[in-house]
Amino acid sequence: MERFSNISMAVVRRLPKYHRYLRELLNNGIGRVSSQELSRITGFTASQIRQDLNCFGGFGQQGYGYNVEELYQELGNILGLNRTYKTIIIGAGNVGRAIANYTFFEESGFKLYGMFDNSPKKIGDIVKGHKVLPIEQVENFIKENGIEIGILCTPKEGTQKIAETLVNCNITAIWNFAPVDLKLEGNVIIENVHLSESLFTISFLLKEREDMKK
Amino acid sequence: MERFSNISMAVVRRLPKYHRYLRELLNNGIGRVSSQELSRITGFTASQIRQDLNCFGGFGQQGYGYNVEELYQELGNILGLNRTYKTIIIGAGNVGRAIANYTFFEESGFKLYGMFDNSPKKIGDIVKGHKVLPIEQVENFIKENGIEIGILCTPKEGTQKIAETLVNCNITAIWNFAPVDLKLEGNVIIENVHLSESLFTISFLLKEREDMKK
Repeated sequence: MERFSNISMAVVRRLPKYHRYLRELLNNGIGRVSSQELSRITGFTASQIRQDLNCFGGFGQQGYGYNVEELYQELGNILGLNRTYKTIIIGAGNVGRAIANYTFFEESGFKLYGMFDNSPKKIGDIVKGHKVLPIEQVENFIKENGIEIGILCTPKEGTQKIAETLVNCNITAIWNFAPVDLKLEGNVIIENVHLSESLFTISFLLKEREDMKK
Repeated sequence: MERFSNISMAVVRRLPKYHRYLRELLNNGIGRVSSQELSRITGFTASQIRQDLNCFGGFGQQGYGYNVEELYQELGNILGLNRTYKTIIIGAGNVGRAIANYTFFEESGFKLYGMFDNSPKKIGDIVKGHKVLPIEQVENFIKENGIEIGILCTPKEGTQKIAETLVNCNITAIWNFAPVDLKLEGNVIIENVHLSESLFTISFLLKEREDMKK
């Protein structure tokens, strides 16, 4: 994937966290916040926070801190949350259904347009108001509806091939829940959620702890 | 969280990936593999791979490479996959149900013992053979069954309090799907899966791409 700016992915991954904490401050009626205070609640150092926010132009004022509402809005713009995105889910199993019903998803502007599966048992089911369609219809569907984001909730087998189909239809981003590292041509954005890797991190740390106790 | 070895978390997070690729090689009947070959399929450099594996003692032999089965077994041991773990899920919504039904979960030795919720609408439901129990029963349940891992699939509100309850019951690890950074005393292992942050990374990259095209 080619990047279009030199903002590091480490900074990019901290932004949603700042955004989340600023919303909490807003909800609590707090009008301004210092980088020290943000440091206390986020766990990042104050200088890290100032440095991250400076990547996008300075928002704070020396001695005043940050205006919470302004910074929240600005971060929302930077995160691309000031528009909606057209999405489809491939795979109407448990994970696909959980994402479809994840309230945060639509609240944040990610609009579900359709669900697809290859199993006759699932095709025709209604999930979050969408009839599950056969996977054979996905190419036409993407082109007709201008779908931008494909969400892969498929088993390992077949996922690479489906991802290639999405790329051929000029989809711009893939949110991948399948336990596969996709190898794709072109400029498609790939964001992986590898649950098994997250789980194995826990078992590793538990094992490490036990070994050290011996 | 206190760590019990000096293996960096970056290394720890690469191990499940190696493990996954080795299983694929095994399934394809491949008996040995060089670090160069592993590099080609994983995308990490050969020297990175050698360095990572050397953290746990050398496995490969100069000029021979790695014995796939041996390395797969060893990594499984290192990742703590040679035993089972007793788990419960708090929150019987869509995410909780998806995890309960995630086949990979039990296959890897994570055994679901119980599901809990605070909603009368969900209490009594059967999920993956478990009757959803009222959250009030969670403390006794953990103690009676020696539960080690608590999986939080709860909404933001209330999650911190439930996590504190789990810690008081001496749970050793929390797999947290709630959009909250838990602040907990003691040595509990916390592994977060923040779906919203993953999603916002996509919207950021899409926005960045559009801005650069202007």
